[in-house]
Amino acid sequence: MNDTDFVTAFAPASIGNLGVGFDMLGLAIAGTGDWVSARKSDASGVRIIEVQEMNGEVHPFLSTNADENTASIAAHSLWNATSNHCGLELIVRKGIPLQSGMGSSAASAVAAVVAVNALLDEPLPKSELLVHALAGEKFASGGLHADNVAPSLMGGLILCPQILLPDMIQLAVPEGVSSVLVHPELQVNTAESRRGLARGYSMDQWLTQQGYLAGFIAACEHNDIELLSRCLRDELIEPQRAASVPCFDEVKKAALKADALGCSLSGSGPSIFALCRDKSAPNLATAMEQACRKLGIECQSWISPLNAPGARVE
Amino acid sequence: MNDTDFVTAFAPASIGNLGVGFDMLGLAIAGTGDWVSARKSDASGVRIIEVQEMNGEVHPFLSTNADENTASIAAHSLWNATSNHCGLELIVRKGIPLQSGMGSSAASAVAAVVAVNALLDEPLPKSELLVHALAGEKFASGGLHADNVAPSLMGGLILCPQILLPDMIQLAVPEGVSSVLVHPELQVNTAESRRGLARGYSMDQWLTQQGYLAGFIAACEHNDIELLSRCLRDELIEPQRAASVPCFDEVKKAALKADALGCSLSGSGPSIFALCRDKSAPNLATAMEQACRKLGIECQSWISPLNAPGARVE
Repeated sequence: MNDTDFVTAFAPASIGNLGVGFDMLGLAIAGTGDWVSARKSDASGVRIIEVQEMNGEVHPFLSTNADENTASIAAHSLWNATSNHCGLELIVRKGIPLQSGMGSSAASAVAAVVAVNALLDEPLPKSELLVHALAGEKFASGGLHADNVAPSLMGGLILCPQILLPDMIQLAVPEGVSSVLVHPELQVNTAESRRGLARGYSMDQWLTQQGYLAGFIAACEHNDIELLSRCLRDELIEPQRAASVPCFDEVKKAALKADALGCSLSGSGPSIFALCRDKSAPNLATAMEQACRKLGIECQSWISPLNAPGARVE
Repeated sequence: MNDTDFVTAFAPASIGNLGVGFDMLGLAIAGTGDWVSARKSDASGVRIIEVQEMNGEVHPFLSTNADENTASIAAHSLWNATSNHCGLELIVRKGIPLQSGMGSSAASAVAAVVAVNALLDEPLPKSELLVHALAGEKFASGGLHADNVAPSLMGGLILCPQILLPDMIQLAVPEGVSSVLVHPELQVNTAESRRGLARGYSMDQWLTQQGYLAGFIAACEHNDIELLSRCLRDELIEPQRAASVPCFDEVKKAALKADALGCSLSGSGPSIFALCRDKSAPNLATAMEQACRKLGIECQSWISPLNAPGARVE
């Protein structure tokens, strides 16, 4: 076998929770993601040949141990379920920074299942790949949370409450709205961040947050940007996590001043996202980056349409 | 002044919470409601001339004290806000049983504001009447909950989280689906029932219920009846209230057996509602009634389309 046997798939980064929908909303973004190349091999089992950085160099932190990478775990789940008796070889190329809150582990898992699916004699429909990508993501996040995997797989804005899995619901996205995602060069461990969250909430707390989520979904479906802006709030989780991202308060303040419709943490952070009208996006990205750099923290940003495409074979 | 000066408005009964959306979803029903007739009077203040039963007889339980009736309190709120210096006389006719969980107090308040609005030189748009109807409803329920007032006023299926008030969001309703509402002849006091609810909930509990609500809203907007059926559940409040309605378990069991898409308490009960495909509605109503009567409890039922009209001047 040689390199021409490889199938390569790309899966985009994503904004988990989207502020208002803890554990159940996610948005795909454009412009960054992970790639996984897969080919059949004569040896049994799944083997990672290499984990690379964007520039093709060997990744300095990620090992090639197939039991410890979301790509290989997800690939293994799909390969096993489809009764393939030969083995698999993978090359993982990371475009998304680690522990960035941008769905890095999810994108690798999704790219892996999409690449491996293309090797099957009878590829599955995309929606049936979710459970296998989740098997990979579970290794990283410690639970069955689809709010990164689902948008990375399907694209756009996805509602994916745990109790409805493996179903995912593609929501309508309002016209003329973009996302801005800023990644400050800090790291937050998702599983640790989750363990730090309060377990109990008052009735008022959950009714408030549930009201915002319900209103946000209706706003998206009704193309009501004013309502979307009022509902894009996280009063439960964000206050508990904000302190772990030193620049959060300043970046959010700058975002709201620069006409963001709302701003919160992406996943468990440190990345910070805002939604805004298309025309405000460039200035908003600049304002958020400046607020971050002013605190001595380097950062990078991406502007995306809300209907950014999901994973695909390249 | 004489009887011809009266303006009469009708406001329908409604299903508060709709099971899945505690405090924030409500559905108007057809076939029963309250009427309020209003006219200007030379005396100042708001006076209730009479509270009547459906048949026009004097109501045996409700007093004509204007400080203790949701209709007069709501009428007073609107009348005061519009700087009318003369007085008001009201006749309230109750079609909805008291403490039935069918939005009886809300319907009186709504019918009152719609009737009084018609007396104004410049009537307000319907959406601006909500706050005044809520002022009346607050007297009965002890809080600002719009899940009966909003659907009674606007008709159809309304999302009205407290944090978005006075805004209400009219949701799309799936085609070919009806509601069945059964009223067992029992009484539950809403305010008392509310005080009995747990104040604290675990993260898993609220994420589960929030997931059902989010999925239900998406199902309505996407006309997805299978998803609606999976999401029409109340795992938080229903278990706490079911014991106060002795026939609930049996009626729900009968409903689900008779092809209900879901079944729960209407408001704080004792009324019980189910949603179903149109063609199942007559059998479903019969099955629910029979289950109730089998326990020796008399009952009555109503079948409605999901887009039942809201309050109007008659």
